[in-house]
Amino acid sequence: MMVQQAVSATGAPDVFASTRERFLIPDGVRYFDGNSLGLMPRVVQLHASNVITHEWGLGLIHSWHEAEWRTLPQRAGAKIARLIGAKPTEVVACDSTSVNLFKVVVSAVRLRPGRKTIVTDADAFPTDLYIVDQVAKLFGLTVVAVPAARIIENLNADVAAVVLTHVDYRSAEIYDMHAFTQASHRAGALIVWDLSHTAGGVPCDLNACEADFAVGCGYKYLNGGPGAPAYLYVAERHANDCEQPLAGWFGHARPFDFAPDYRPAEGTSRFLCGTHPVIGLSVLSRALDLFDGVPLEALRERSLQLTQRFIERVDAQLAPHGFVVASPRAASLRGSHVSLRHPEGYGVMQALAARKFIGDFRMPDYMRFGFAPLYNTQEEVAELVDAIDDIMRRREWDKPAFQQRRDFT
Amino acid sequence: MMVQQAVSATGAPDVFASTRERFLIPDGVRYFDGNSLGLMPRVVQLHASNVITHEWGLGLIHSWHEAEWRTLPQRAGAKIARLIGAKPTEVVACDSTSVNLFKVVVSAVRLRPGRKTIVTDADAFPTDLYIVDQVAKLFGLTVVAVPAARIIENLNADVAAVVLTHVDYRSAEIYDMHAFTQASHRAGALIVWDLSHTAGGVPCDLNACEADFAVGCGYKYLNGGPGAPAYLYVAERHANDCEQPLAGWFGHARPFDFAPDYRPAEGTSRFLCGTHPVIGLSVLSRALDLFDGVPLEALRERSLQLTQRFIERVDAQLAPHGFVVASPRAASLRGSHVSLRHPEGYGVMQALAARKFIGDFRMPDYMRFGFAPLYNTQEEVAELVDAIDDIMRRREWDKPAFQQRRDFT
Repeated sequence: MMVQQAVSATGAPDVFASTRERFLIPDGVRYFDGNSLGLMPRVVQLHASNVITHEWGLGLIHSWHEAEWRTLPQRAGAKIARLIGAKPTEVVACDSTSVNLFKVVVSAVRLRPGRKTIVTDADAFPTDLYIVDQVAKLFGLTVVAVPAARIIENLNADVAAVVLTHVDYRSAEIYDMHAFTQASHRAGALIVWDLSHTAGGVPCDLNACEADFAVGCGYKYLNGGPGAPAYLYVAERHANDCEQPLAGWFGHARPFDFAPDYRPAEGTSRFLCGTHPVIGLSVLSRALDLFDGVPLEALRERSLQLTQRFIERVDAQLAPHGFVVASPRAASLRGSHVSLRHPEGYGVMQALAARKFIGDFRMPDYMRFGFAPLYNTQEEVAELVDAIDDIMRRREWDKPAFQQRRDFT
Repeated sequence: MMVQQAVSATGAPDVFASTRERFLIPDGVRYFDGNSLGLMPRVVQLHASNVITHEWGLGLIHSWHEAEWRTLPQRAGAKIARLIGAKPTEVVACDSTSVNLFKVVVSAVRLRPGRKTIVTDADAFPTDLYIVDQVAKLFGLTVVAVPAARIIENLNADVAAVVLTHVDYRSAEIYDMHAFTQASHRAGALIVWDLSHTAGGVPCDLNACEADFAVGCGYKYLNGGPGAPAYLYVAERHANDCEQPLAGWFGHARPFDFAPDYRPAEGTSRFLCGTHPVIGLSVLSRALDLFDGVPLEALRERSLQLTQRFIERVDAQLAPHGFVVASPRAASLRGSHVSLRHPEGYGVMQALAARKFIGDFRMPDYMRFGFAPLYNTQEEVAELVDAIDDIMRRREWDKPAFQQRRDFT
């Protein structure tokens, strides 16, 4: 079968037409929720079936070697590393973002003994605040939670660690990785970045910024599937000095010696804990291959084209209905989703869902629309804005069925 | 199609012939490693395909509600609860055994402030020792690691928690859950049981013993697949007093309120942390259904028949070759695997593997054979012993290929 090569307006091969074809997009669905749960790459159907039936069912225990299950955290981590500006050996995929955050924040404060403060963004995704609070409690530290704009003025010689999300989960505002990292270092503190809304949507460069630690999520722009394993990054210069608290056997230098004393593995691998979830991790690893051959500059350009087009259309068509763009207008500050605010946002999102336009909603009135560069298109952007416009004209948001409250995930 | 109902020698329906048919058993393989990685239940092939393609690929984010992804930890936990003598609401499936152990040991020591000692089994599976050491370090406690037989004499008013594995991973010795739990309570301490080699192979009764906490593994006798999510149990009387350190958003009372302050969920659900791995957890949950309709007394009887037959045959056929049974001969003390010791054990296990008899090896000279009541048979036991006998007669263990060292998992 001939594969038709899509071309862009300039005649160059359009890498994103090719990547879009590799996702399952249900009939009639316009999906703007890749910042919450990425679409399913078609290849994972067969891949998971192979892992389950051939590797587990037929290969059994031998697949730890023969199917290389043992090195899945490192192999998936190396694929993520390219997207976030890390060395391949600095990233492992494992556990959940929350668990990984606990490991790296504890490690950071242990590298800065005597300092008694953690500074973090008061508007961070709540799980990050909960984990930071628990670390502070365990180490007798004080948490200073302030808006991101006030973090730098709160840095001083008592600060052990700064915990900050690179792309804000509500507004999609990008916080300057270089500036915050350097300011933290000037104060003698270490910085931990949460890249959950970054990797796969917005390139970043942890190494160039000299970032110390990072964590992130596998199921958003990385398309690893619901609750996919997360990842963590530890700068090579720190890894062998780190003592992480979840010292399970997979982080041991020689796990199969079954030694009673813990001797951590070299490098970031010491941040592994228990036996890793092979099926989910293998699916994530396979999904990450969809970024192969996608230049990061092109990924960013595509993302900005989509969000820019959306903002322009909102201004033109939806501002008269009272919609406010709650995301930065400056391209350099804008991640890969755009949030709108509207008093009837909840009902509008439900009405959109009934039309198979899928975005999500965050309290109290944020309508979030993710634009995943691998699969969203300009045509979908126009259709989305037209649909919201039409819902407002018809007052569809006011239907009782669309006002009934339920949780969005 | 008529389904032929297998019957036992007594003419009663043989539940285990029916359960065995539900597993994929590769051609020619005799599998005695269900205590390390359970066989694949045939049903999970189609089940995983459905979760991936229909729930994720087509249902997308809505599957958190519509496919009930949200309650997977509780639903899988409730199925495990029956196997370990817990209330359905006292168990959740999540994270890894090591991560869960960290949560419950921290919770236990927080419930016993002022006490400065954790007592544990020096011969426990190493990851348990590593985690206990980290908890002790965080709380400034001392770990007393002694052989299980000396735990009770080390209990006193300074002991906050006892951490003990119910079925020893090497010898399969069962430690008396009632006696250790009651002795711990008399000293005012709380007890944490590791049930990794228990659940699905050996019934236990956490509630009847008044056990405080437990953790366990999903990929051994529960057949959840490689690196399947683990589980944890918290006695109902403690759960709402517990403060667990991995306070992620899924343990929050109202995760989708995105509140900046952590308010733990009621009961054992507060022990959830990050977003759970849906694919792996759903596979585990489906695999657990294979225990439906299997009475726990029958499960235990079947397990004992298999291990007893094996020990008898070893005594008769293999003792002359120098094999020593390293597992208890008393039925009441014996779990669902049997370990043999032999100086050439490593080479023997490799020679067995070449004949498609799969067990595993633990340093320095333990040959472990798991007898999973859901699928192993008396015929396989006889074939296993005959194969070892034959390998010894032919000195097959001495072949260079079988002496080459590699890790067993």
